[in-house]
Amino acid sequence: MVKKQEHEIPLTSFRIEDSFWSYFQKLVTDVVIPYQEQILNDELPDVEKSHAIENFRIAAGKSDGEYYGMVFQDSDVAKWLEAVAYSLTLNPNPELEKRADDIIELIGQAQQEDGYLNTYFTVKEPEHRWQNLHDCHELYCAGHMIEAAVAWYESTGKTNLLDIMCRMADHIDNRFGKGKVRGIPGHEEIELALLRLYRATGEERYLHLSQYFIDERGTQPDYFEEEEKNRGWHFWSKDGSDKNYAQNYAPVREQDHATGHSVRAMYLYTAMADLAGEIHDESLWQACLRLFDSTVNRQMYLTGGIGSSVHGEAFTVDYDLPNDTIYAETCASIGLVFFARRMLELKPDRRFSDVMERALYNGVLSGMQHDGKRFFYVNPLEVIPGLSGVQPEYKHVIPKRPKWYACACCPPNVSRLLTSLSAYAWGESVGQNDKTPSPADSENEAAASTDTCDTVYSHLYIGGTFTSKAGGGVTIRTETSYPWDGAVCYTVTPDSAASEFTLAVRIPGWCRDFLVSLNGQVLDTNSLDLRDGYLYVNRSWTNGDQLKLSFDMPVRRVYANPLVREDAGCVALMRGPLVYCLEQEDNGPQLQTVRLPKDSILTAENASDPVLGSYTAVRATALRLTPGDDLYSDEPPKAEETVLHAVPYYLWGNRSEGEMRVWIPEV
Amino acid sequence: MVKKQEHEIPLTSFRIEDSFWSYFQKLVTDVVIPYQEQILNDELPDVEKSHAIENFRIAAGKSDGEYYGMVFQDSDVAKWLEAVAYSLTLNPNPELEKRADDIIELIGQAQQEDGYLNTYFTVKEPEHRWQNLHDCHELYCAGHMIEAAVAWYESTGKTNLLDIMCRMADHIDNRFGKGKVRGIPGHEEIELALLRLYRATGEERYLHLSQYFIDERGTQPDYFEEEEKNRGWHFWSKDGSDKNYAQNYAPVREQDHATGHSVRAMYLYTAMADLAGEIHDESLWQACLRLFDSTVNRQMYLTGGIGSSVHGEAFTVDYDLPNDTIYAETCASIGLVFFARRMLELKPDRRFSDVMERALYNGVLSGMQHDGKRFFYVNPLEVIPGLSGVQPEYKHVIPKRPKWYACACCPPNVSRLLTSLSAYAWGESVGQNDKTPSPADSENEAAASTDTCDTVYSHLYIGGTFTSKAGGGVTIRTETSYPWDGAVCYTVTPDSAASEFTLAVRIPGWCRDFLVSLNGQVLDTNSLDLRDGYLYVNRSWTNGDQLKLSFDMPVRRVYANPLVREDAGCVALMRGPLVYCLEQEDNGPQLQTVRLPKDSILTAENASDPVLGSYTAVRATALRLTPGDDLYSDEPPKAEETVLHAVPYYLWGNRSEGEMRVWIPEV
Repeated sequence: MVKKQEHEIPLTSFRIEDSFWSYFQKLVTDVVIPYQEQILNDELPDVEKSHAIENFRIAAGKSDGEYYGMVFQDSDVAKWLEAVAYSLTLNPNPELEKRADDIIELIGQAQQEDGYLNTYFTVKEPEHRWQNLHDCHELYCAGHMIEAAVAWYESTGKTNLLDIMCRMADHIDNRFGKGKVRGIPGHEEIELALLRLYRATGEERYLHLSQYFIDERGTQPDYFEEEEKNRGWHFWSKDGSDKNYAQNYAPVREQDHATGHSVRAMYLYTAMADLAGEIHDESLWQACLRLFDSTVNRQMYLTGGIGSSVHGEAFTVDYDLPNDTIYAETCASIGLVFFARRMLELKPDRRFSDVMERALYNGVLSGMQHDGKRFFYVNPLEVIPGLSGVQPEYKHVIPKRPKWYACACCPPNVSRLLTSLSAYAWGESVGQNDKTPSPADSENEAAASTDTCDTVYSHLYIGGTFTSKAGGGVTIRTETSYPWDGAVCYTVTPDSAASEFTLAVRIPGWCRDFLVSLNGQVLDTNSLDLRDGYLYVNRSWTNGDQLKLSFDMPVRRVYANPLVREDAGCVALMRGPLVYCLEQEDNGPQLQTVRLPKDSILTAENASDPVLGSYTAVRATALRLTPGDDLYSDEPPKAEETVLHAVPYYLWGNRSEGEMRVWIPEV
Repeated sequence: MVKKQEHEIPLTSFRIEDSFWSYFQKLVTDVVIPYQEQILNDELPDVEKSHAIENFRIAAGKSDGEYYGMVFQDSDVAKWLEAVAYSLTLNPNPELEKRADDIIELIGQAQQEDGYLNTYFTVKEPEHRWQNLHDCHELYCAGHMIEAAVAWYESTGKTNLLDIMCRMADHIDNRFGKGKVRGIPGHEEIELALLRLYRATGEERYLHLSQYFIDERGTQPDYFEEEEKNRGWHFWSKDGSDKNYAQNYAPVREQDHATGHSVRAMYLYTAMADLAGEIHDESLWQACLRLFDSTVNRQMYLTGGIGSSVHGEAFTVDYDLPNDTIYAETCASIGLVFFARRMLELKPDRRFSDVMERALYNGVLSGMQHDGKRFFYVNPLEVIPGLSGVQPEYKHVIPKRPKWYACACCPPNVSRLLTSLSAYAWGESVGQNDKTPSPADSENEAAASTDTCDTVYSHLYIGGTFTSKAGGGVTIRTETSYPWDGAVCYTVTPDSAASEFTLAVRIPGWCRDFLVSLNGQVLDTNSLDLRDGYLYVNRSWTNGDQLKLSFDMPVRRVYANPLVREDAGCVALMRGPLVYCLEQEDNGPQLQTVRLPKDSILTAENASDPVLGSYTAVRATALRLTPGDDLYSDEPPKAEETVLHAVPYYLWGNRSEGEMRVWIPEV
């Protein structure tokens, strides 16, 4: 029977001190959060107007203005508050905390007497509350504010926002459910939020309400069609007839392909996985496995981007992965991280953590300018200024990160993910010696005896100090220069003289050769306890024990499945978890003329740049074809030798505006 | 100074009896024209409704119905009538002629007292006549009916339609021009039609009116912006702000890149070239050269398709030639044939005739089902059922030819081109011994002495009998199995005992090796008079003289300019003028997994198919990659040997619905 293999652990249990990630965490706490606060308060000139906090003031009766923005503008504030909550665990900041408390107070004032909270429908159309769940995002906004409330409570211990959102959750619970009004959200989010609220409060009604929304999706009669029939008004022109868009083509347990709006899909699947673990629901787990497989093995870009089409910001069909008209919304890659993390809780298997890593180091990070002040919504794998951002098919593929968006879902999503990164690096299973079969068992893999012991899981290689209850209490210090270097050293310090537990460390799927040493002695690879991509090291750990991993990290040529039309004949360059790309800044224009010979020499080289900082570049001997005058010719184009300079994909678009491409024809 | 190097010659001067083209001409006369007549009369079930003839009945007061169809529905009748006119020169058909005369009588009855003719604005919105030239196609419809009138007059000698359209032309001339009302058409066509009307009638006002419309385009203040301002109503939502769409970004003589709606562009450029020759306008000729170069050397598909984007059915930017989201409207390739033909009149140069041939044998013919009853509007170079015709980006790329269209411009355009093919095969310059410098001179190529002699030009290799006035009168019989075979034999029969003239024969750009023999004696290649891709053979021809050409016609690998992103790393197969493609029918699905090794063996083989008939197939040893389970892998995909069967592109889509592709990755 499926069940969670990991406990929830507090964010503070892993303090990140890392040569790679600390930069981003500091960037978010010091730059991004204040920058976004200014935007939400409309204090920055020359950026897309937010008005999100002013909307709360208007709803609270403290201002006379007009509502402005998307129908889900409230969620920008929610996600920012959630990021602030996490940031306080990294960097206490009483002034920021006070300002956030003031906003929370304002949110409370904007709440209606019956618990309802949504500034759009409070200010603009109170008569239309709850009538257009397909388009109007009331449950979505509630979900995000619930997430913020849980984060705020867990970080600060304060219940101010939690109390507000419990009232809203109760309001929702009083309205929707079996024997009450029928409803499901067009944009999923409330489901995963209610599960977090359930765990924060212990209130089982929230678990059941989440399950109601999950179970109801895709059942007949179609809720969105019924809603559309009953409604005499429209917010947008969307109708509910597209059953893929909001993942309602079948009851969720019967679904087998990831469809529609990719962010919606990820938020739903995240909740499904979470719920499967909470209620030990095997059929839900099996659906999650199918949907994960559909997402990452047939519809995912090399960068962990998902969503091939701007139309519906959506998945299309298997193996359709255009690089230049791509959508690959930053939020979708973040959602994929959420989904993979929840799957990993149910089964320690690198098929989940590898994807989490891929998205984090590539498609998520690319969403933010290296200075934290500009953001991509769409993360292309090929950009051609003049087409990209200009021609109708490419209009959404903007070659330079804008400062803000009218639909600003992505920037605060990056903030909350990066400030809560600790939750993704480590897992812990303590005191679970009950021998309940794990999903691994159900797939005919015998649980090793070490499974009966406390286990800590190292999912990501991030420097810092992890404090675990395993083996009676232990501190594990990680030192690494990952992803620039493949060496990771874990130093164990038990609270008592010795501590028996299992340290389970992911061996990444990208790695062909690695060495493991324990206290300086190299372990025989054949004797290692390797299961599902995790190396299990069980022992009685004593003070100063060191487990060292050394992953061979050459530059790799990566090939797409030949069913992917758009990458036919092409190769991409990766090193460790990082996808590399060519930029015009380093390689000149007309990148489509570059060819990578099969025998070309690929090297990793330290590089430094005033904007990008220090990074590892990939250099490659290559060919550049010489365009002739003829559009078509019987003669193969002439070629000149050249040397390419590839940069990590997450760093692209930080310098001059120019061409970029990931996939290179191989010759 | 630019001037026409060819005279107008009557269609009847070249009687086609050809193993390739006679099929299509017979198909059009016997099947397509009656089929389209039924559709225009709404007599066929299960096809997109036309109503085009009924609209004329309503406008004539002979029926009470409601107008139906596009604002340019009249033009479908015009193009059909034009095709009927040409078809009567191929195959006299008194009954068809009578029915056409009845329709012409109806058209006359639909004409207003002031000469105005347009059923939409007569029936639906008489108060809005001539107020929306940008969108409403009144001048476009007039142009097509003028072309029909000229064709009808030239084929039958009857002036019934010519009289009607002279009244309409006079109406237009009375309204528009310098010192009268300002105006230019949104969709060009009237310009080239008025030039034909001028030549048919000798009335110089029509020449001047054509020149007015050409000269006025792109001048300031912008006509379409002014019109938009003055108008309080809209037909469509288009505004006049896009200066590329209707080629009004600059006065035509200053234009240097082909832009916007590609059919509009071709019709304009055709008229510009025609006018340049009529009025000896060197700057207009130079603009035509630039626009031809922009079209065919930077924006044309291998098939002679043009228009890369569905948005505006338009050109985009140089070297942007997506194969799967392509537009490449059949009408645009037809327009390119018109443009190339007019250019060729001004300068016998294979850069024009090669393009004419490329479009004719590929992108034009592909527009019609092999049975003449279905038609493509969009002619893709890659089709993937499930994406093509379904997903929003690919919605317009229908994998199977529909029977008819709501916007049915293409089908009758194919009909009129195929029935008038004689006009494209031969050219004639008789009695032009005036030593006026030709454009060739202006490019520093000395006119050979033979230029002072009568010349006949063989632009296309089509079997049949050409009757020329050259050298005092001569008949030239052509025998060939082109394009399946590279042998062409011209047998000359002078009207008198001997006849001195130059036979100028195109040596196609695709041909690397050829032999020429005169009366069985092979000519020394070094002694040939070859200029601009034409072989000039001047002599005193006597009865039975034979000039034989033998073009080596191997299967060729063709490469796109490396600036074309979408064809990077790919090769296409051609033989003679024919582009080849792979279809699922012959090669199975997942054509994106096919790779063509550089050293693979390519052979031409006779093939026969119940639907396609006899044709030459290309067979190629190749590789097929084996899709694994992984979406991305460090291992290059495994490959199996396979043999490909490629069919001529013009034949694609005639059998089962399936994948098709032209460009194949080369390894």
